Amino acid sequence: MGLVGLGLIGGSLGLDLRAQGVEVRALVHRSATAERALERQLADQVSTDPAVLQGCGLIVLALPLDRLLDPDPALRQALPADAVVTDVGSVKQPVLERWQHWHPRFVASHPMAGTAQAGVEAGVEGLFSARPWVGTPGVATDPEALAAVRELAEALGADWLECDADAHDQAVALISHMPVLVSAALLQSADQGGAAAGAAQLVRRLASSGFADTSRIGGGNPELGTLMARCNRPAVLQALAAYRQQLDALEALVQGEDWGPLHAALSRCQALRPEFL
Amino acid sequence: MGLVGLGLIGGSLGLDLRAQGVEVRALVHRSATAERALERQLADQVSTDPAVLQGCGLIVLALPLDRLLDPDPALRQALPADAVVTDVGSVKQPVLERWQHWHPRFVASHPMAGTAQAGVEAGVEGLFSARPWVGTPGVATDPEALAAVRELAEALGADWLECDADAHDQAVALISHMPVLVSAALLQSADQGGAAAGAAQLVRRLASSGFADTSRIGGGNPELGTLMARCNRPAVLQALAAYRQQLDALEALVQGEDWGPLHAALSRCQALRPEFL
Repeated sequence: MGLVGLGLIGGSLGLDLRAQGVEVRALVHRSATAERALERQLADQVSTDPAVLQGCGLIVLALPLDRLLDPDPALRQALPADAVVTDVGSVKQPVLERWQHWHPRFVASHPMAGTAQAGVEAGVEGLFSARPWVGTPGVATDPEALAAVRELAEALGADWLECDADAHDQAVALISHMPVLVSAALLQSADQGGAAAGAAQLVRRLASSGFADTSRIGGGNPELGTLMARCNRPAVLQALAAYRQQLDALEALVQGEDWGPLHAALSRCQALRPEFL
Repeated sequence: MGLVGLGLIGGSLGLDLRAQGVEVRALVHRSATAERALERQLADQVSTDPAVLQGCGLIVLALPLDRLLDPDPALRQALPADAVVTDVGSVKQPVLERWQHWHPRFVASHPMAGTAQAGVEAGVEGLFSARPWVGTPGVATDPEALAAVRELAEALGADWLECDADAHDQAVALISHMPVLVSAALLQSADQGGAAAGAAQLVRRLASSGFADTSRIGGGNPELGTLMARCNRPAVLQALAAYRQQLDALEALVQGEDWGPLHAALSRCQALRPEFL
């Protein structure tokens, strides 16, 4: 088993796989990371030399989206042609588009698990348990390779599902990527609107647990938020357009003092939310 | 001590005050509520007859905003002229405007505490502990009455603060009322956008803890959401305008592929959020 990257996802994969007795070899960027990864026992072998991947039958590219979409040529050359290769990126269409040409046994996949942590200290055991792990095969995807990635996901306790890469990207734009911007705009408007009203301190003192929840993902990792928007731009823009339409409609009800329809809309939202939990 | 209403706020006040040995008399709307309130020992006396308030030195109107703004004439007549009267409404300017003409010792106030529960079963002990309790005196507010309400808030462990009613209403529009609509629109767009993309089930399966947090207040009590918008309409519309401006700016960065400025904006949000916690 090979891992490329030992951050939150790669490190967690290493811990779970080693606990199951699988031999894990990992490629990392910096030698300081390699040392710390060995101390944490995230893998059996860790190296900055791509040759460490020779002999691996299944390789997970646990890289940030930008490095996955524009990989080091030495990495591509080092991937054995007969290995099954998968990734863990949160956007699938551009990954599939590139990698299906770059490797004959590539499978695009997305384990939907995470914490607020990143880096070599972030990996934890059991991260994938009972979480969705989405495979997005294309027409050219090798069915045996797909089955191998599914087996990996299920061995780690994840709930495997398959869908079209485009459908995946539109869905995560709606429930994950666009909401980052919606939540970030809320923080900015509380800050700017509070300042404009001469109530900069008051908004901070009165913000409650509701505001903390609504602003959580907007105040998250800026690298991740930017990469999501950058790598899933068409779907994020489409999701923003859908969002704006809904917000406009609610605003029109407030503007028009249409309290009955507003109550009906909020009642539908109350009924909708459990479907997403 | 008199309480008008024994829902979440009124019931919680009753429990805390009785625990401190204060005699509590309560006026409720329905006799079934009165019976249950006595069983729960929310007050020493509970009645549907406004005469129960005679002899009370401090009376809290723990009513929903609509009933507070358009009260039963019998309630107004039953309030002793020498009692200090306060409310617990989440909007202050319209409450102050009306009640300062209706009662000589009225003090507008807002304990910022809550749970998702409502009704006679909702009251809990310690609800106000370490939570903000805002007093919004007007020019006509009796300073002694204001001091009495502050004493009540502090006796219950709340953090007392005072500000202008308009500033309060603008602040809560930004950090509480407008975010309900922002969050509700998110639920609607995930539902509608998912259906439009043929991914209605997929968005539900892939929604994670981040979506659960961001959608929590939008999927909350529709009565409360509607009342907030209705009673704080100008400030909510102003907050929505401020919000739209921020969201437009973020969308323009995605549209223009301005990834450096987007990263900078999300970094500012990451730094901002702890100030609101």
